[in-house]
Amino acid sequence: MLRLKSPGHNRLFQTGILEATFGGGEANVAVSLAQFGMEARFLTALPDNDIGQACLRELRGFGVDVSGIIFVKGGRMGIYFLEAGANQRPSKVIYDREHSVIADLPPGSINFEKALAGCGWLHITGITPAISASAAELALEAVKTAKKLNMTVSCDLNYRKNLWKYGKSAQEVMSELTGYADVIIANEEDCQKSLGISADVSVESGELCVEAYESIASQVMARYPQVKYIAITMRESKSADHNDWSACLFGRESMYVSKKYRITDIVDRVGGGDSFAAGLIYGLNTYAEPREALEFAVAASGLKHSINGDYNRVSVAEVEKLMKGDGSGRVQR
Amino acid sequence: MLRLKSPGHNRLFQTGILEATFGGGEANVAVSLAQFGMEARFLTALPDNDIGQACLRELRGFGVDVSGIIFVKGGRMGIYFLEAGANQRPSKVIYDREHSVIADLPPGSINFEKALAGCGWLHITGITPAISASAAELALEAVKTAKKLNMTVSCDLNYRKNLWKYGKSAQEVMSELTGYADVIIANEEDCQKSLGISADVSVESGELCVEAYESIASQVMARYPQVKYIAITMRESKSADHNDWSACLFGRESMYVSKKYRITDIVDRVGGGDSFAAGLIYGLNTYAEPREALEFAVAASGLKHSINGDYNRVSVAEVEKLMKGDGSGRVQR
Amino acid sequence: MLRLKSPGHNRLFQTGILEATFGGGEANVAVSLAQFGMEARFLTALPDNDIGQACLRELRGFGVDVSGIIFVKGGRMGIYFLEAGANQRPSKVIYDREHSVIADLPPGSINFEKALAGCGWLHITGITPAISASAAELALEAVKTAKKLNMTVSCDLNYRKNLWKYGKSAQEVMSELTGYADVIIANEEDCQKSLGISADVSVESGELCVEAYESIASQVMARYPQVKYIAITMRESKSADHNDWSACLFGRESMYVSKKYRITDIVDRVGGGDSFAAGLIYGLNTYAEPREALEFAVAASGLKHSINGDYNRVSVAEVEKLMKGDGSGRVQR
Amino acid sequence: MLRLKSPGHNRLFQTGILEATFGGGEANVAVSLAQFGMEARFLTALPDNDIGQACLRELRGFGVDVSGIIFVKGGRMGIYFLEAGANQRPSKVIYDREHSVIADLPPGSINFEKALAGCGWLHITGITPAISASAAELALEAVKTAKKLNMTVSCDLNYRKNLWKYGKSAQEVMSELTGYADVIIANEEDCQKSLGISADVSVESGELCVEAYESIASQVMARYPQVKYIAITMRESKSADHNDWSACLFGRESMYVSKKYRITDIVDRVGGGDSFAAGLIYGLNTYAEPREALEFAVAASGLKHSINGDYNRVSVAEVEKLMKGDGSGRVQR
Amino acid sequence: MLRLKSPGHNRLFQTGILEATFGGGEANVAVSLAQFGMEARFLTALPDNDIGQACLRELRGFGVDVSGIIFVKGGRMGIYFLEAGANQRPSKVIYDREHSVIADLPPGSINFEKALAGCGWLHITGITPAISASAAELALEAVKTAKKLNMTVSCDLNYRKNLWKYGKSAQEVMSELTGYADVIIANEEDCQKSLGISADVSVESGELCVEAYESIASQVMARYPQVKYIAITMRESKSADHNDWSACLFGRESMYVSKKYRITDIVDRVGGGDSFAAGLIYGLNTYAEPREALEFAVAASGLKHSINGDYNRVSVAEVEKLMKGDGSGRVQR
Amino acid sequence: MLRLKSPGHNRLFQTGILEATFGGGEANVAVSLAQFGMEARFLTALPDNDIGQACLRELRGFGVDVSGIIFVKGGRMGIYFLEAGANQRPSKVIYDREHSVIADLPPGSINFEKALAGCGWLHITGITPAISASAAELALEAVKTAKKLNMTVSCDLNYRKNLWKYGKSAQEVMSELTGYADVIIANEEDCQKSLGISADVSVESGELCVEAYESIASQVMARYPQVKYIAITMRESKSADHNDWSACLFGRESMYVSKKYRITDIVDRVGGGDSFAAGLIYGLNTYAEPREALEFAVAASGLKHSINGDYNRVSVAEVEKLMKGDGSGRVQR
Repeated sequence: MLRLKSPGHNRLFQTGILEATFGGGEANVAVSLAQFGMEARFLTALPDNDIGQACLRELRGFGVDVSGIIFVKGGRMGIYFLEAGANQRPSKVIYDREHSVIADLPPGSINFEKALAGCGWLHITGITPAISASAAELALEAVKTAKKLNMTVSCDLNYRKNLWKYGKSAQEVMSELTGYADVIIANEEDCQKSLGISADVSVESGELCVEAYESIASQVMARYPQVKYIAITMRESKSADHNDWSACLFGRESMYVSKKYRITDIVDRVGGGDSFAAGLIYGLNTYAEPREALEFAVAASGLKHSINGDYNRVSVAEVEKLMKGDGSGRVQR
Repeated sequence: MLRLKSPGHNRLFQTGILEATFGGGEANVAVSLAQFGMEARFLTALPDNDIGQACLRELRGFGVDVSGIIFVKGGRMGIYFLEAGANQRPSKVIYDREHSVIADLPPGSINFEKALAGCGWLHITGITPAISASAAELALEAVKTAKKLNMTVSCDLNYRKNLWKYGKSAQEVMSELTGYADVIIANEEDCQKSLGISADVSVESGELCVEAYESIASQVMARYPQVKYIAITMRESKSADHNDWSACLFGRESMYVSKKYRITDIVDRVGGGDSFAAGLIYGLNTYAEPREALEFAVAASGLKHSINGDYNRVSVAEVEKLMKGDGSGRVQR
Repeated sequence: MLRLKSPGHNRLFQTGILEATFGGGEANVAVSLAQFGMEARFLTALPDNDIGQACLRELRGFGVDVSGIIFVKGGRMGIYFLEAGANQRPSKVIYDREHSVIADLPPGSINFEKALAGCGWLHITGITPAISASAAELALEAVKTAKKLNMTVSCDLNYRKNLWKYGKSAQEVMSELTGYADVIIANEEDCQKSLGISADVSVESGELCVEAYESIASQVMARYPQVKYIAITMRESKSADHNDWSACLFGRESMYVSKKYRITDIVDRVGGGDSFAAGLIYGLNTYAEPREALEFAVAASGLKHSINGDYNRVSVAEVEKLMKGDGSGRVQR
Repeated sequence: MLRLKSPGHNRLFQTGILEATFGGGEANVAVSLAQFGMEARFLTALPDNDIGQACLRELRGFGVDVSGIIFVKGGRMGIYFLEAGANQRPSKVIYDREHSVIADLPPGSINFEKALAGCGWLHITGITPAISASAAELALEAVKTAKKLNMTVSCDLNYRKNLWKYGKSAQEVMSELTGYADVIIANEEDCQKSLGISADVSVESGELCVEAYESIASQVMARYPQVKYIAITMRESKSADHNDWSACLFGRESMYVSKKYRITDIVDRVGGGDSFAAGLIYGLNTYAEPREALEFAVAASGLKHSINGDYNRVSVAEVEKLMKGDGSGRVQR
Repeated sequence: MLRLKSPGHNRLFQTGILEATFGGGEANVAVSLAQFGMEARFLTALPDNDIGQACLRELRGFGVDVSGIIFVKGGRMGIYFLEAGANQRPSKVIYDREHSVIADLPPGSINFEKALAGCGWLHITGITPAISASAAELALEAVKTAKKLNMTVSCDLNYRKNLWKYGKSAQEVMSELTGYADVIIANEEDCQKSLGISADVSVESGELCVEAYESIASQVMARYPQVKYIAITMRESKSADHNDWSACLFGRESMYVSKKYRITDIVDRVGGGDSFAAGLIYGLNTYAEPREALEFAVAASGLKHSINGDYNRVSVAEVEKLMKGDGSGRVQR
Repeated sequence: MLRLKSPGHNRLFQTGILEATFGGGEANVAVSLAQFGMEARFLTALPDNDIGQACLRELRGFGVDVSGIIFVKGGRMGIYFLEAGANQRPSKVIYDREHSVIADLPPGSINFEKALAGCGWLHITGITPAISASAAELALEAVKTAKKLNMTVSCDLNYRKNLWKYGKSAQEVMSELTGYADVIIANEEDCQKSLGISADVSVESGELCVEAYESIASQVMARYPQVKYIAITMRESKSADHNDWSACLFGRESMYVSKKYRITDIVDRVGGGDSFAAGLIYGLNTYAEPREALEFAVAASGLKHSINGDYNRVSVAEVEKLMKGDGSGRVQR
């Protein structure tokens, strides 16, 4: 997606300037993984014009493998307009993503066996199946092929209430998709909204309760026997500038609650969840202990809140430094 | 439309900045007329979100009467991306205007009798009927109502080869629309492309021939007996920075060729044709002589080439100063 | 007034850039009310040059009724230079507003009966009568006419120690003006400085005492029997970035203390008081309960601290969302 | 003066940004001379606030001797707003310089004997005496003292039709001032407007006639027997972007016409005349031949047209390179 | 190299902003070729810090194969500071490239047999051997290996008078290097300065003489029997804004003189020569006729003058459109 | 040094813009002192190009005496690249300062007797002797001459772990240099790293212990009998945005601990230590009581954290206002 943000804390169109970058769930994860030094291939469809080419150039610059991207003549790229909130004023997103090439791409357009060849892990989010019936179909094709190829599948539920307009409900689609996932990533409300598994967690209260998540995780594990890990991010939103950020990870036999980061001067929280997903994938592929994977993921996504743009522009060394306890912010020279 | 331009002479996405303003054929004419001190009402549909509101704010700021604008929930505004050319490199426009609220507005949505009440002149361009079948229908409703209300109708043919994708050809639609016009405005190739009336004029050659336009005008006048004036702008495009700019005006009995302006350091030529149309409307309503109306229109649109953005931000005094011969560019202090 | 601000937290002239917008007490209130969907007419005098025209364009864009603005040939607009503070470094304003057209406008220049025709409420601030003897005279003419027309009059005392240079003291002038007000708005020190009614409140201490304000309000009510409401904003200034913000409203029989907002990352606090006044006017005209009017006003002005520029660019829906308790700052998408 | 310019070719307030620099006749000359390596002292009055301090900092940075500047508490600095023209659209200046500290400085405020001690040359322009009666008085005090101290006096007539509002005419004041000048600098129309000495030169025509200037120079020399040199700049204004630039120098016995520079892509022509004056002062103090002084002055001021801001940021080496014929614009590396 | 340019036409450090991009001879050629859709591998050494990584990201984004780039701990990247000239004021480059990692890389550091594996063409410029003795040594190793691998070698002589400080002269080194080249590229003065082959061509005169180049080409061909083509670019520098641009190509049996482009509004001419080299390499590999290769190269580099930055951000389609005659600059929409 | 910073909180090269200013230990102190109204002469070497000239212009603008600066043909200025951290992400500095003219300046190049003539105080930092053996030599020459001239010498130990690469250790050099100092300034870890005097203080912990500093101060005083004062700044780094800031001052007989400032929204903390040093020098020269000197220094450097750039752009009045307790950040108008 093309992201068009008003500068600083200005409201949309308060000045005549928009900051134009690219972003979006799976792209953010791919960039994060490439930044961490992993091989990451990104599958999508882009319009065959200067906008699609600019997006390609940015992703390729980060080292993402773009060989699987399909270019479509005459289409458009989804856009989202963003203004950054402050204090009690929330950040605001206006979507203009209908009729994008990825939304209109017919099922069967991607040869997933070829596109996924040589890969060991597939990551998908709940945003793609939310944008159109055909995109949901493609998402299903992807996870089915991945399982056929013995790949690990992770799914970030990522519920967006303003999408899901094409006739099917989130629960209907995501329940099926989740049946192919080895690792599930969710935030405080995703399981409820996407899978219909409830817990007494009010998003607005700002108070989070690990016990409730434990109950949710048990229910998910019971329903989906192939799931190995469920990770839940816990955002305590004090204001648009101040969030506390932590997560918990549930395995079949174990459960971990991460350190909590107090983030009082948020630079940009969009993409925070994606940076967590990328951190978790990196961590589960790198560290011996799930606890370390979780701590890496939380530290990585904690740092994301201090970085402009959708992408998490940090290195493994920077994440590990924080993960090991140095969050003092002292000048590095 | 939302206009997103890369700064200066940069190619699109060469920097992370886009300049966001609003524009589009009829809007540009309305703003020009309001700048000239005329009452101008603009009829369109806008999405009911921050983007539509920002557009409304801008138009209203210029003094355009926005009371007839319809707001549509959930829709989108058309977008065009622009990069400014230089020397032999042409400026480039990428349209992302499909599925805009105006394109999707059903025929009959606007009560034109009410919307046009109290107005004496209706101006329409060939862009609106080019974007969708329903927009073409609405355009026809507008001109028919205008004639019923004894209003003068002007039509800027404004052929755009990358529009007209919905099934009907430009000639098919514009031939009918032209049947309601009192004043026709066209550039070197519009009559040919929109009305199928040919003349030996090659756009690329940069050499323009008034005789050919005379022949075209005669043919148009013969075919459309209600037409009172045909104005043709003549752009001699030496490079992206240097155009020579003039126009001719054909009446039933008379013909005028304007002064020619040598514009060697173009700031922004988008909206040049619209500023001519507005100048002509102002002129025909203000001056006793058609020749003066033509000279006002050419001077106004000549000045437009020195002004950023779609809108022609000039006053009557500035246009008349140039029209009367002072093009020396001496500092005014 | 033309507001010229150095970008970000830079000191004045630290870079070669100034951000140019418009603002000023009554203008800010008018824009706020128009944003809230009320009809708002703004009365002032502007210089008849590009600066005055730009100001007009901005106000009209917001939907403010500008039909009553007087244009003066050859005059100047007042200017204020602003730099934003941070932490212990305060924001700084340099006024260059002497000899502005509004300051030099002779008494009697405005036909207030005509200018106020059809209006139900007049709002005035203590800044206008502070800039010149003639402006004070005009302010008196305005309130007298308003009362004659049975309008409600509100007055924001708004004491500015660097104004009041023309010979009369604030107390002298404001005491008379207050005699025509139905609603009085003040901050912690205004009553003392503008009306000479004292209370033990030290502005610098950062600790505010509602009891003291109760005592002040009683004294004001006693002295001015026509006054129906006195609203006092309470700014607890911890640093240039962190203010706590609340207010109290005193009626003849009742008293309300609002919620307090903790604003730790101020974007721009200039115009905060004006946004409170506008919120209160909106609230008193909209809600059944004074308490609701107060809470709306405090929430509206609390949000203002998160918005650049003098104007409070928020909608009723946004204010009511905060007023009803959602200050979590969660991304709206 | 504080110079506030809209960026690029934008009209004033088209964007929310103004570029803030400092400038003004005598200041520009002083900076130019300092850039050329001469000792230059600048005498003026500035307001004792952040604006005056910023101006001081800029001038001192260029190496101008600022020890003679007077700071006045509570005053204001003159401002001019500038937009850059293009093609047939002229650049535009809006003055807001009334009631500045220099305009209001009483005669006798400067001890010129002390302020000019150790200096050999006094330069003054026709702008200072145009702003107020007291400034005209101070200007006279300055030239009288300079002559008493046996300094050379140069005067740039610099007629501005929008100044001279305080009761005296330009001719009245400038005729007396010119009686103390050794060197007079003028443009095509200055002698006529400032001294009432006429010649058949129309500024608007763009065609310049050296013979007419010869006649003017003879008349001036006849009237003012102490005058040694008269320099007249000849600007042929083809458009706001394209001026041809040359000058002639008349001595008692001789006359020189300079090379003519074709400047087709003007960056900023404000300050062009001041840069000529500085070049001439440098040249007459440096070169043996008046012809060389003239060529240096024309080359220096020709270069000024390629430089943003009032100041001529060029070195002697750069001017001499052009003066000796290298105007090819080849990259220097 | 890191390129730090003052914005617009500002002199260096006139504002507090520098535009930071990357560039440099061979990098520019590689980016151009990648833009044209060819596979292009770039060999260099970069410092292993954020600056080197940013350069890598940019090159990789353009699709350049960066697998052969060597990262060096603790080193620095060469920098050049650039200000853009205008009219008679030339653009200016300040080099800060001593002690860069590429300048200090010891001979033998690159395994050229491996680095060049699979490539068919090696391009080198005269800048690399100019920066240090070791870089000259590496350049020689490169061309020798290329010839061993039966690759075609092209060499852009690219004489820079401010380099060549390490003890050897340009002629000494370039004479040897040229002995391995199949294609030589030069500007008007390169052959003289780099190879000592003289012709009566004065760079400053702005008049160019094809006959002189023919004589030079004959001499080069006679001295270097392996050379197949010599291409000479002809820049007629009228001013910093206006250059005429053409080239000639000499084969063993034939000679071609290209169309000449009149470029009157230069946006950025740095990298013009590199874009010619890339165009020629593309052309000689693509078209049947050398004449076409030459015309492609001149059109491509002509377009470069209209594009900001070192890189020539144009497509083959854009170049071919101009090459086939459409230089009218009409808006593409 | 030239300081190149990415805008706002962006990572280096995240946008194509760098903010270019100047700074560096001793320069920052000199500018601070000049801002406080003291006479300050700055001794250094600069390259004789536009970069050196720009630096000179900036320093001279602040009123620093630049008469002692040496210009070196052909050299380079040291550069540091800076990105601003946020929350747990630290600010980052990349040095590119090797081979700068000051690093390569041979011992004996400065006639210190002449350069220091008329001065009463010499301030030096531990950065200069860290960059090269010759710079260390020059530093020693400076302090020896200063003592010979009976000047007071202050030394800010300023340990930088990434410098000190030329063969000698910090302890080796600084131990000797300290032998000439009357006043020593250090941060929490400097004494340990520069002088080898240890205390149980961990920088990362964020908890500071005055007792430990007392012990360190005693040891320093014991070893260096000429030392009169040791000042230690205490930075409690909670995050990149939030530091608590205080200091203590040890005399031979006395000890003072300053107020502590809670700085929760850091704008720029680079130069904080230098602003403390300048404040202490000003204070010891101005106030009767060492305690006041300390409080002035802490307040001055506390304010520095709210100001962009290396320099502390504050006045004595602003510092004294904070020093006397007003840190409420209320708008000054």
